[in-house]
Amino acid sequence: MGSIVEDLEGALGLAKVSTDEALLALYAVDQAPVLDYQLPAAVVFPETVADVQAVVRSCADRGTAVVARGAGTGVSGGAHASRNSVVLSLERMNRILDLNPDDETAVVEPGVLNAVLNEAAAVHGLMFAPDPASFRISTIGGNVATNAGGLRCAKYGVTRDSVLALDVVLADGSLIHTGHRTFKGVAGYDLTGLFVGSEGTLGIVVGVTVRLKYLPRDVQTIAAFYPDFRQAASGVLAVGRARVQPAIMELLDGGTLAQLDDLHGSDLSSRGRSLLLIQTDGFGAAAEADVIRTVLAAGGALVTTESTAEAEQLVELRRSSRGAEVDDEYRVGEDVAVPRSRLVDYIAALEAMAGAYGVNLKVVAHAGDGNLHPTFWIDRVDRAVDEDAMKRLNLALDASIATALEMGGTITGEHGVGQYKLRWLGLEQPEPVRELQRRIKRLFDPAGILNPGKAI
Amino acid sequence: MGSIVEDLEGALGLAKVSTDEALLALYAVDQAPVLDYQLPAAVVFPETVADVQAVVRSCADRGTAVVARGAGTGVSGGAHASRNSVVLSLERMNRILDLNPDDETAVVEPGVLNAVLNEAAAVHGLMFAPDPASFRISTIGGNVATNAGGLRCAKYGVTRDSVLALDVVLADGSLIHTGHRTFKGVAGYDLTGLFVGSEGTLGIVVGVTVRLKYLPRDVQTIAAFYPDFRQAASGVLAVGRARVQPAIMELLDGGTLAQLDDLHGSDLSSRGRSLLLIQTDGFGAAAEADVIRTVLAAGGALVTTESTAEAEQLVELRRSSRGAEVDDEYRVGEDVAVPRSRLVDYIAALEAMAGAYGVNLKVVAHAGDGNLHPTFWIDRVDRAVDEDAMKRLNLALDASIATALEMGGTITGEHGVGQYKLRWLGLEQPEPVRELQRRIKRLFDPAGILNPGKAI
Repeated sequence: MGSIVEDLEGALGLAKVSTDEALLALYAVDQAPVLDYQLPAAVVFPETVADVQAVVRSCADRGTAVVARGAGTGVSGGAHASRNSVVLSLERMNRILDLNPDDETAVVEPGVLNAVLNEAAAVHGLMFAPDPASFRISTIGGNVATNAGGLRCAKYGVTRDSVLALDVVLADGSLIHTGHRTFKGVAGYDLTGLFVGSEGTLGIVVGVTVRLKYLPRDVQTIAAFYPDFRQAASGVLAVGRARVQPAIMELLDGGTLAQLDDLHGSDLSSRGRSLLLIQTDGFGAAAEADVIRTVLAAGGALVTTESTAEAEQLVELRRSSRGAEVDDEYRVGEDVAVPRSRLVDYIAALEAMAGAYGVNLKVVAHAGDGNLHPTFWIDRVDRAVDEDAMKRLNLALDASIATALEMGGTITGEHGVGQYKLRWLGLEQPEPVRELQRRIKRLFDPAGILNPGKAI
Repeated sequence: MGSIVEDLEGALGLAKVSTDEALLALYAVDQAPVLDYQLPAAVVFPETVADVQAVVRSCADRGTAVVARGAGTGVSGGAHASRNSVVLSLERMNRILDLNPDDETAVVEPGVLNAVLNEAAAVHGLMFAPDPASFRISTIGGNVATNAGGLRCAKYGVTRDSVLALDVVLADGSLIHTGHRTFKGVAGYDLTGLFVGSEGTLGIVVGVTVRLKYLPRDVQTIAAFYPDFRQAASGVLAVGRARVQPAIMELLDGGTLAQLDDLHGSDLSSRGRSLLLIQTDGFGAAAEADVIRTVLAAGGALVTTESTAEAEQLVELRRSSRGAEVDDEYRVGEDVAVPRSRLVDYIAALEAMAGAYGVNLKVVAHAGDGNLHPTFWIDRVDRAVDEDAMKRLNLALDASIATALEMGGTITGEHGVGQYKLRWLGLEQPEPVRELQRRIKRLFDPAGILNPGKAI
């Protein structure tokens, strides 16, 4: 009868199938805390759509799970290997198949890096708007699987808003095309939207048609330093009330500033205990920045306009503010979102929680869309797990989720449910809504081989 | 056993159920050509979510179809009554339940008129961006059901892009809530997107949470008149190549200009044989308009900047360019979309088709997103149907669709498939994709009572 590995080697050839122990371990997890560590039977590296179809068919025949993977930069465990699984890495399918500057569209294989597409588009004055902090190393396919957000979502939308059409391999190995190459199209149900953000549980995306947007001619950066984090958060509302739409509006707390200074030798902490970092872009960037500076200064901020080099450095620091540390059980970064009017209240509540449970907290936020990244952590002591501290960490995490939901928020603004956030999904979605999704899952994947135990 | 009408009267009371013949006839159709005229058994006017649930339950019990209806301004027959149906008009559910200026969101009942929501939002410097030409009389629920587009989609997106969450009554009468109040949210599958544009075939939308955008501070209007329609279409590409994003970019052909002059006493035709009407908005509007004027003048246009009053009149004329005539079997307005690079070719092809089949043609286009509204028509002769002319009209329609698809386009950019465009859906979507949608339909509506025979 042979094994799934033999099937795969037969179908794809040896060069596209690995069972190397070290490699299996590397591909067994993404950057999320690991709940249930499993090694896959193999990691496969398809190079064509037909390869992906062959993998899915082999796995379907044997009831082996298929865990699709982009660059493994996800932070919710959507790419963690399951029991009895094959990890299907799309990294070798990394060609830009078409980039039409007049249509303002591109067609790419899923393994194309976000940054690579952006470089190719920039030549034509275009950009792929979704910009997760991982954009240099994350793939378009991964962005699609998680419906990734990023810094400039408030103005330019999330990944879903830039995806026009998809090529998808279904659970039976068949290939379908959804959507349209045109900017608008309403023929039939929005299957494209259903696949975006479904984390490889409904099908495997093997081709993506995206809409590109215009690279802004001008970018203005404003740094507003505040003596207090909540006051900085109220600056977000003030900008909104002025009805000016920044491209980027990021909030960094004092702990984040201190950490950035430590890591990068910057001198942010001396300027304030909190930073609201704003970029405007486009033809109106300078005029918009004028309004924002006025509004923020009136709200008590120390407002500076940054030169290009300083601005780039600040935004770069923000992108790296998650730090080099990958989340683990001692350190968990959340990504709740709350309605903008509740930002100040929510931040106050977070600070109270950290105090109440005796855990460390730092917060950055895509404040323009109310999406927060609080990170709670406890110190490791000599590799020994402090059970009480772990308990307090988890209580703080649970409290941060419960409070976000009470304020009308969501458990995940952009990271996705993956494996790690399943514990909270039932708090946001009542059983009938969850059951509807399970039924959709069964419709697309009756045998349950596509990334089981994730997303819903 | 009684009848469905008695059931409904018992459940809702007499004041919410009508069987008046004239009213039944009025509510039996929307503004699309009628393929298969049917009178509904009754028209019901629910005033609460519970009313809608009661109607759906009564209809489910008897296997009666439920055709949900907003204002009946659709042009694809999505609201045409089916055989053995009840028309469920949502016009009395017309309250704005919440409008939060800091959150920049609103929660509305489906019967709220697009214009009414926009008036309420404008007080706070906000707008509901989707602006179908029918915005004064069409409802948010109808906009959601068709995923309506409009003039400013190229910059602000379609209805889907402004919908955050929905309350939906399912085919069994149960009520679910999908989505999130926050701008971003990726918990679970995108059920919200699946309902948007599904034309009442998967559930009945009884509540809509929308994201509002900022009313632009400045609006600049540019009228570019050309001696030739194709040359005007090439102006669209020139603006794109300058990487300037207009809020509105509308293309009107000579026939449309002449008709507008006839109807409204304007004097457009004397200025050119075709008009490219552009609005820029926001803080950069004036700078963007400068670039556009330069680019278009270089391309041979007679470019004028319009005063506020003239500009409003021009855009108003454009919105009314469909004319007072409702489509019928002698006059059919299409809404194909093509990739922008093919606009000029497609317009040339349309003109050739009209000549080849001996039918009349006028064209307007939301050119910024490649979405065209060609209208083909034949003259009625003394109420007698000219069978040969009808045949030629239909051949021209078929050719316009086939050519749009050959160019990588779609059969419907914003109107929806409804009943009328079903004849072409199979040309765009192969059988496996259609079957997948039928299975989704069966999952949501096993008995097939929700707007049968539409959309897919």
